[in-house]
Amino acid sequence: MSGDAVALARRMLAGDRRALARLITIVDDGDPAVASVMREIHPKTGRAHVIGITGPPGAGKSTLVWALAAEYRRRGREVGVIAVDPTSPFSGGAVLGDRVRMPADAPAGVYFRSMASRGQLGGTSRSVRGVVHLLDAAGKDIVLIETVGAGQSDVAVRTLAHTTVVVSVPGLGDDIQMLKAGILEIADVYVVNKADREGAERTAAQLLAMIDMGRESARSAGHTGDEGWTPPVVRTVALKAQHIDALADALDAHRAYLVQSGRWEALVRAQSAAELQEALLVRLEQRLAGAAVSAERERLIEAIASRKTDAFQAADALLERIQSGHGA
Amino acid sequence: MSGDAVALARRMLAGDRRALARLITIVDDGDPAVASVMREIHPKTGRAHVIGITGPPGAGKSTLVWALAAEYRRRGREVGVIAVDPTSPFSGGAVLGDRVRMPADAPAGVYFRSMASRGQLGGTSRSVRGVVHLLDAAGKDIVLIETVGAGQSDVAVRTLAHTTVVVSVPGLGDDIQMLKAGILEIADVYVVNKADREGAERTAAQLLAMIDMGRESARSAGHTGDEGWTPPVVRTVALKAQHIDALADALDAHRAYLVQSGRWEALVRAQSAAELQEALLVRLEQRLAGAAVSAERERLIEAIASRKTDAFQAADALLERIQSGHGA
Repeated sequence: MSGDAVALARRMLAGDRRALARLITIVDDGDPAVASVMREIHPKTGRAHVIGITGPPGAGKSTLVWALAAEYRRRGREVGVIAVDPTSPFSGGAVLGDRVRMPADAPAGVYFRSMASRGQLGGTSRSVRGVVHLLDAAGKDIVLIETVGAGQSDVAVRTLAHTTVVVSVPGLGDDIQMLKAGILEIADVYVVNKADREGAERTAAQLLAMIDMGRESARSAGHTGDEGWTPPVVRTVALKAQHIDALADALDAHRAYLVQSGRWEALVRAQSAAELQEALLVRLEQRLAGAAVSAERERLIEAIASRKTDAFQAADALLERIQSGHGA
Repeated sequence: MSGDAVALARRMLAGDRRALARLITIVDDGDPAVASVMREIHPKTGRAHVIGITGPPGAGKSTLVWALAAEYRRRGREVGVIAVDPTSPFSGGAVLGDRVRMPADAPAGVYFRSMASRGQLGGTSRSVRGVVHLLDAAGKDIVLIETVGAGQSDVAVRTLAHTTVVVSVPGLGDDIQMLKAGILEIADVYVVNKADREGAERTAAQLLAMIDMGRESARSAGHTGDEGWTPPVVRTVALKAQHIDALADALDAHRAYLVQSGRWEALVRAQSAAELQEALLVRLEQRLAGAAVSAERERLIEAIASRKTDAFQAADALLERIQSGHGA
C-alpha cells in the first residue's frame, strides 16, 4: 500500500485530481500509508492560506463558503474546501444531517470534500490537517474549512487555520450568545451574514462590543499578543453574493498582517508542534495495535477494572512491552 | 514528593479530610506523584455511583446539584460534588465567570470541589477522573459531577459517569435545542428544572419526543444496546427542593438497572480502558519532558515548520530517542 500511495502522491503533485481524491480517502481512513504520503508531499506544503469558517447552525456558512470560493476564483486563486460534518459520538449518526453539499452552481475549479468529524476530537483535527496538507501540496492557494459552531471541532480548527472567521446572523437570542462565548473569542474576522435582515445593525454592534470586552479582559489578564490586529466585522448577504469582496479583502489583509508581524511563522511553528504530537499518538497507537501488545492491553484493562492494578502501573507495563520489541 | 503523597493517601483512607483536599490539589496540578497516590488508593475504588449533571447555562444545575446532595444526605449516603468550571482555552480566563459556588445553606457532610476545565479535553477528563477516584476511595457513595453544557466537557464526563443527567428548563428556543442535540443524546435521566414555570409541559413533551426519535434512529442504525432502559423525564423545582426525591429515585433505579443488566461492569471496563489510555499519554509526556528529549523535540518542530522533515519521521526519531534511554 505504501508504495502505491507514494505513486499516488507523485501523480497528485503532477496535477492528477483523481489521485488527490484517493489520497484524501487514505488520510480520512487513517490508513498506515499516510506516513509515506506525508513524507512525499511535505516539502511542497506551507504555501496555502488556511481559513477556518465557523458559526451556529442556520448562519448560512455553506452559502458563504461557496460565495467566497467564487470570489477567490475570480481573483485567480486556486481554492480547496473542506466541510467538517458533525457526527454524534454516541449514535454514530449525523447530528444535523447531511447539511453540507456542493451546490449545483458551485464555481468551477474548486476542489470540495466533506469529512465526518470523529467521535474523538484528536481524530478530526488529525485527518483534517492531513487533507489540508494534500490540498496545499496540490497547489491550492486558499483552503477553506467549514465547521459547525458546536464547540469541539471549532477549537480544533483553530490549531489548523491561519485565519478564523466566525459567522453570525441577526436575531440570535442572548442564550445563544452565551453558548457561543467560547467560540466568539477565536475569530480574526467576524461576519454578520444575512445582513439584509432586520437587526443586522444591532448584531454587528453587539459583536463589536464583545470584541472590545474580550480585548479588554485579555489585556487585563496580560495577554497582549494580538494588539496589531483588530478583528473587523463584515456584513454580507451570501445568498446574493453581496460584500463577499469585502470579506475576501479582510482575509487577505489578515494574511498580510500575519506575515508582516511574524505571527505567520509563529502559527506555523505551533501547528508543527501540534502535528508532531498527533503523529506521536498515531505511532504509539500503531505499536499498541500489534497482536501481542493488544492482548496484553486487554489483560491490563481487566486488571484495572477488577482493581488488581492501577492505570499507571498498567501503562508502564505496556510501554515496557512495546519497547522491548515484542510488540509485533 | 511521592513518599509524602503516599502518606497523605493513607491518611485520607483513614478519614482525614484535609489529606483529601491536598490530594485533590496534587491530582488537579498533574503532579508526578499522582501515580503513587493512585497505586495506593486504587484497591479502595469502584464503589461510588458517579453521576454527571449537565445542561445549558441558566438551567439551575448548581441549585439542583445541592438539592440532590441534601436529598442523598437525608438517605444516609456520603456525597462528593465536583463542579467543572469552563475556562477559555484562549484567554485563560473563565468563560462564564465563577459560576459555581458552595451555597451558604449547603447540606452538612458534603465534600465540594470546583475544578477548572483544561484547554485540552483530555486534561479535564484525566484530572476529574483522578478526583473521582479520590472521593470514591474516601468513602463517598455518590459523586456528582456538574459541567456546563457547552459540548466538550460533557462528552468527556460521559466516559467518567455511570449515569448522565441532562437538565433543561422551560422556554429554551429551537436554536438552542439544535445546539444541544449532541448533548441530549447522552442522557440516562432528563430533568426539566424550574418546572413551576410556564411551558414546562411543553418542554417535557419535546424531550419525550426527542428521546423517542433518538431511540428510533439508534434502532434503525442497529444500535440496540440500551433497550432495557427508557430515560425518564423528571420535573423538578430545585430552588424549592420539589421532586428531588423523584430524581434521586430515578438515579437509584438507573444504578440498579446498570448492575442487573451487566452494563455496570461494561461501563467500568470502558472507563478502565480510557484511563489506561490517559495514563499512557501521561507517561509518554513525562518521558518527552526529559531535558535531552525536550531539546530534540524543539529541533524537530523547527524542522517540520521549515519543511525539512515531516511529522511522522520526526515522531519516529523522538520515540527512538525515548526508547534508547537518553530521555533523562
